[in-house]
Amino acid sequence: MNISFTKSGRLKPKPSSEALGFGKLTTDYMFIMDYDAGRGWYDPKIVPYSPIPLDPSTCVLHYGQGIFEGLKAYRSPDGRVLLFRPEENARRLNNSCDRTCIPPLDENDILEAITELVRLEKDWIPSAEGTSLYIRPFIIATDPFLGVHPSRTYMFIIILGPVGNYYPTGINPIKILVEDEYVRAVAGGTGEAKTMGNYAASLKAQDKAEKLGCIQVLWLDGIHRKYVEEVGSMNVFFKIGGKVITPALSGSILPGITRMSSMELLKKHGYGVEERALSIDEILHAHKTGTLEESFGTGTAAVISPIGELLYKGSNYMVNNGAIGPVTSMLYDTLTGIQSGRLPDEFGWTFEVK
Amino acid sequence: MNISFTKSGRLKPKPSSEALGFGKLTTDYMFIMDYDAGRGWYDPKIVPYSPIPLDPSTCVLHYGQGIFEGLKAYRSPDGRVLLFRPEENARRLNNSCDRTCIPPLDENDILEAITELVRLEKDWIPSAEGTSLYIRPFIIATDPFLGVHPSRTYMFIIILGPVGNYYPTGINPIKILVEDEYVRAVAGGTGEAKTMGNYAASLKAQDKAEKLGCIQVLWLDGIHRKYVEEVGSMNVFFKIGGKVITPALSGSILPGITRMSSMELLKKHGYGVEERALSIDEILHAHKTGTLEESFGTGTAAVISPIGELLYKGSNYMVNNGAIGPVTSMLYDTLTGIQSGRLPDEFGWTFEVK
Repeated sequence: MNISFTKSGRLKPKPSSEALGFGKLTTDYMFIMDYDAGRGWYDPKIVPYSPIPLDPSTCVLHYGQGIFEGLKAYRSPDGRVLLFRPEENARRLNNSCDRTCIPPLDENDILEAITELVRLEKDWIPSAEGTSLYIRPFIIATDPFLGVHPSRTYMFIIILGPVGNYYPTGINPIKILVEDEYVRAVAGGTGEAKTMGNYAASLKAQDKAEKLGCIQVLWLDGIHRKYVEEVGSMNVFFKIGGKVITPALSGSILPGITRMSSMELLKKHGYGVEERALSIDEILHAHKTGTLEESFGTGTAAVISPIGELLYKGSNYMVNNGAIGPVTSMLYDTLTGIQSGRLPDEFGWTFEVK
Repeated sequence: MNISFTKSGRLKPKPSSEALGFGKLTTDYMFIMDYDAGRGWYDPKIVPYSPIPLDPSTCVLHYGQGIFEGLKAYRSPDGRVLLFRPEENARRLNNSCDRTCIPPLDENDILEAITELVRLEKDWIPSAEGTSLYIRPFIIATDPFLGVHPSRTYMFIIILGPVGNYYPTGINPIKILVEDEYVRAVAGGTGEAKTMGNYAASLKAQDKAEKLGCIQVLWLDGIHRKYVEEVGSMNVFFKIGGKVITPALSGSILPGITRMSSMELLKKHGYGVEERALSIDEILHAHKTGTLEESFGTGTAAVISPIGELLYKGSNYMVNNGAIGPVTSMLYDTLTGIQSGRLPDEFGWTFEVK
């Protein structure tokens, strides 16, 4: 690609590592590439971060034709800039495009765009432990037209922002609500794609969970309302009787990159990992018989979130006495260690931005 | 409400009735009201139609937190300006808000905003048969923040556009694909609300239908994959053995205002109307035994769409030999007659903008 560049007249002050939350700050530049049905993807550019003017009839503002990705750039102790399996994000972005009738991109172009923007903004990458530069590629449908039809024009945009821990409390076991009223997704729907509508659909249950003192929702499947699917916007794992179990990708579950990496790490460490249907009854039975050993969520934003307690139909169920279990700790330490360059990368997962 | 007004420096030329499609044109002004968690809904205003600048991290562009409504203003033969049951749209808009954690509006304010804007733009209302002024109220979440959380700020916007027939072919029986791969919605999800994500989720199946020579999709339920739910973005009715049947509102179906009005009209005309689960097998059995008499979709955009043929698992099934049936015709003529003021309104459904 031939990426054009427009210099910003004024750069923002960089924040201190302590002030970082999640998703509040953005950097000085963004990447934009346009699509038109006649021309394909064209005019890749890096321009100053600034508002995007959208016609009030723009497709994405009415019919939600838009998808996104999320990944992070880390600064290693020896000063290198590392991405974590960005080719997987590029591939998933195109899968999300396919589900929502958005024309695919060349995956090399996605990687080049991310790399060029991160390289330009490398001074924004914080170095304190637990911090990183969050990368948000997204695509929005931009036709000014109120018919329900795939847009003929799109914008592919990448924005960046320095982030600290996803949860203000850091890595602490969270309490989650097992949701039996609202449903996130069902096979045949959009649950396995990163479409914007999936997230709007989750807000009501999340709100309910917070009112009940929980941090996240554990989604049950939409058909039987008994098999666990995801936790909040993360994949979920349970360790029962020495085995680690995660729901199989049944068509309504997002294929997480942290999920995939966790499974590979677990196998390497000699744990049996089962990808299969896992019912809430099986989990509660394990709790009753003392074999529910650990539980955690996996996702780019929080990496690994230990689950310390479940709330289901008004009853509370502690997991591992509310403490972080050894497998959860191992995964968190190993993954964040590899991602940030503090541990050797035996898997070839990291990608250096030179 | 005290609606402020900013005059436009230049008005667009009004199109001729023949040039009208659906959703392509917008008028000179729009209504905007803002929301902030501290202030509530505030600053209602009518301003020149113009692009809205959105920060690239704006909530709605990532998590699809947005909802909309659709209704029409008609010019009657005696020059009155008529809305059709706008209070039902206001009520449904608030239901959609509730499902997506958007703060509700005062329904009188919604009606006042629509009325004021339509009154100002009344010269845009076309008068040829089949034409109207389409009204699109919508709400978008505007927080510039990348965490998955309900926004603390919103914009409620109303835009208008003169429209002709929804289908370029006018009121002709359409061929529809009975979709058994993709799912629109499931109970517990967002299917009964007018959220933007529902429409993005429908595009892939719609695209598939078009490639198979169909105009719309007939959705089956996401659990059993056998009960009919909606057709495209309309509700659906089947007349079988003298009885008119429409799927009951099971939690995954949008409660259409044209659907509700059609049922009331049918009852008044002495037809039995059944709201219940209706399987595709029952429909095909009726086809086989010669009792599948009519089928049609109902919605604001197309009002009544006769269905002339079904395509299911590779086989074609004609309905009423592909012709418009008498009940379908009666509903179309009566509804469009009442809406446009050409027929008396015995139900008190029309609302005059004075």
